[in-house]
Amino acid sequence: MPLPQPDLPEPAHPTVDSMLSRKFGKEIANYFSGSPLNRVSFLRPDHTFLSQALNHPSTTFVLFNNLEPLVKGPSELAQRTFADVKAVVGEDPFHRSEEDQIAQYNSSLYQPQIIFLGLDERKEGFIYKEHYKGQPWFAVDVTPKESVKEAAEKLVAGLKSEGLDFSKGRMNLSLPADQAAIYAEARHLLDWNARNPYCASCGYKTLSVNAGFKRTCPPKDIAESVTNAGDRPPCATRTGISNLCFPRTDPTVIMAVVSADGQKILLGRQKRWPKYWYSTLAGFLEPAESVEEAVRREVWEESGIHLGRVVIHSTQPWPYPANLMIGAIGQAIPEGETIHLGHDAELEDAKWFTAGEVREALRVGTSGLGEDAGPEYKEGGLRLPPKTAIANQLMTAVVNGFASGTPMI
Amino acid sequence: MPLPQPDLPEPAHPTVDSMLSRKFGKEIANYFSGSPLNRVSFLRPDHTFLSQALNHPSTTFVLFNNLEPLVKGPSELAQRTFADVKAVVGEDPFHRSEEDQIAQYNSSLYQPQIIFLGLDERKEGFIYKEHYKGQPWFAVDVTPKESVKEAAEKLVAGLKSEGLDFSKGRMNLSLPADQAAIYAEARHLLDWNARNPYCASCGYKTLSVNAGFKRTCPPKDIAESVTNAGDRPPCATRTGISNLCFPRTDPTVIMAVVSADGQKILLGRQKRWPKYWYSTLAGFLEPAESVEEAVRREVWEESGIHLGRVVIHSTQPWPYPANLMIGAIGQAIPEGETIHLGHDAELEDAKWFTAGEVREALRVGTSGLGEDAGPEYKEGGLRLPPKTAIANQLMTAVVNGFASGTPMI
Repeated sequence: MPLPQPDLPEPAHPTVDSMLSRKFGKEIANYFSGSPLNRVSFLRPDHTFLSQALNHPSTTFVLFNNLEPLVKGPSELAQRTFADVKAVVGEDPFHRSEEDQIAQYNSSLYQPQIIFLGLDERKEGFIYKEHYKGQPWFAVDVTPKESVKEAAEKLVAGLKSEGLDFSKGRMNLSLPADQAAIYAEARHLLDWNARNPYCASCGYKTLSVNAGFKRTCPPKDIAESVTNAGDRPPCATRTGISNLCFPRTDPTVIMAVVSADGQKILLGRQKRWPKYWYSTLAGFLEPAESVEEAVRREVWEESGIHLGRVVIHSTQPWPYPANLMIGAIGQAIPEGETIHLGHDAELEDAKWFTAGEVREALRVGTSGLGEDAGPEYKEGGLRLPPKTAIANQLMTAVVNGFASGTPMI
Repeated sequence: MPLPQPDLPEPAHPTVDSMLSRKFGKEIANYFSGSPLNRVSFLRPDHTFLSQALNHPSTTFVLFNNLEPLVKGPSELAQRTFADVKAVVGEDPFHRSEEDQIAQYNSSLYQPQIIFLGLDERKEGFIYKEHYKGQPWFAVDVTPKESVKEAAEKLVAGLKSEGLDFSKGRMNLSLPADQAAIYAEARHLLDWNARNPYCASCGYKTLSVNAGFKRTCPPKDIAESVTNAGDRPPCATRTGISNLCFPRTDPTVIMAVVSADGQKILLGRQKRWPKYWYSTLAGFLEPAESVEEAVRREVWEESGIHLGRVVIHSTQPWPYPANLMIGAIGQAIPEGETIHLGHDAELEDAKWFTAGEVREALRVGTSGLGEDAGPEYKEGGLRLPPKTAIANQLMTAVVNGFASGTPMI
């Protein structure tokens, strides 16, 4: 049975369901979440599975060049076959077990990064050990470099002759939600692997295993075998499970702040943004903070506002490069509403807007950062981020309830 | 004005407040959150501030030896003065600006780690630039090693002669909530600094700056100046802001799973746990997952159960070594309640318990992992984690509502 998706029909038990919806509302599936793939994460160490999945005729490959995905225009990922990438990644990059890969590690050999993204269970085709079915998806880094430079250049030239190209920056990408989620997974993992070639514990080069979801610090390196029989010094990551070996995701808080009377919304702006553009405040959660504490700290540091109650609204994966945005709504305490920008110098301005101003701007003033606002927008009016940003969802939640005549949250 | 704490009195606006509490309940401040300190994070790069705070007579120092805090018995952190640690950290470790520290970087010199934890605004004393007041707190690593071995050994011996000692493992630590939060901040940051001495981008040694909240990869190293004028190769972390320079916190999901009819709770156990001990399922959030997706994936991978609705309950910082536990409650879909442990081999067992069994075990069967259950516990009954664990809070929330006659969430 496929994993349930956020857009599931209502559960069959109306009592329990209404209990949930009364108290928590519907789940908000923000852009970049809602992946159709089952990651079957426990199969990643199984090289027989990976090898069979890689070679199955139904399998789809998403290609990346310097972290930019191959697309058919701005709103569709190009889906390719193993035949396309074989000259770059080799006949069967998963022919050895991880144990053998580690034992035969050679830091001087370049292996293009491959990520196993998951199985699309909506499609028939591949079956493994009876339980695991669907269309396998892989991401492959085909950046022309190192030993695959020539093969990758040839591949890229061939793709261009078919009219395909790699996206030119995230502002030029507007994928539908399911493809955006797959792209986010691929980009986050390709970036993490590229950003972490060395072991932070011992300084030696690491090896990608688990189909792109782990980096391990091998105890030997054939490239160094002349000098030292290839033995490396001891490394703490080898004596137990270390988070350093696993992909990093940075929890971030982002919050719509309402005044104590629920009638106003605090927004801030950074200097580099277009004129009249504001958004919700945001920042990284720090070590040993709860989400509520991080929200209160960031809001006070950036705007001087003191929050009382804080509630979590929804979350959004954000693959630039590796964030989990945790969206919240916070309420100022009556004696803590005075704006003070002098603590942290991060914002150029912060301002209380009325719910009406924000509601109107959500209607006419939203766009991507590099785009123009809609046709009804009038110069001088408030501009806001688009629906794909959790900031927009948070402000929408507030104007649909918190600050209106009939409070909804 | 101090930052509001979770145990604030009720806000003065009953309408807005009742609106919030009706929909979201009260904020749950889990153990290790609820710090009394204002971190004033924006002052960390200001070495004049740090130097003054370090030297102020009101300032408190928490000492660590191999990540174990100095305590007065199991339930109180020992608070020491600068005079105690001066011989280990030096007269004024913050006498230089960060710019100068980086320019004069010498990888062969050992500098014990110091963390600026924040200001306790409940106490009078130190004042900086009019706005920032309170008792400064620092954590210092006094592990006897490298160039400070002798001085640190002498310090440790002196402390022991006063009857103080370093904690012997986390099972022997039961701090009150406010001290636990301060300890969690200190431990998380000391561990992160110790775990990441090398740059994952280029493999060279890094330097602690921002009073323990940042590690930077200097472009020159005096220790290498004989061979190469001290110049290091280019590093990607120097050309922009990189998450590698900042402390890592791993988002983790932990979830109480209820059956579709709300009457049963799913719990699992690991092989290494004591007999009869079960807890909620948990796992790391992966790249490009929303919290709800991570919860559904982990529950299916570990137990075979398919969840529909998932709601976030509360969060808990967990400093072993660097987690943010995101607690949720998930509800199985009616056709997805069959347990299957064969996907991921992580659990030894998973079982549906009645709400009554869990309620009784929360009353008589809770304890720390290494401890005995309470006096009313009968051999063979369900055992569960203590109140300081978010797992306990999630189960409590469920039996206080979800699975009872009068559903509360």
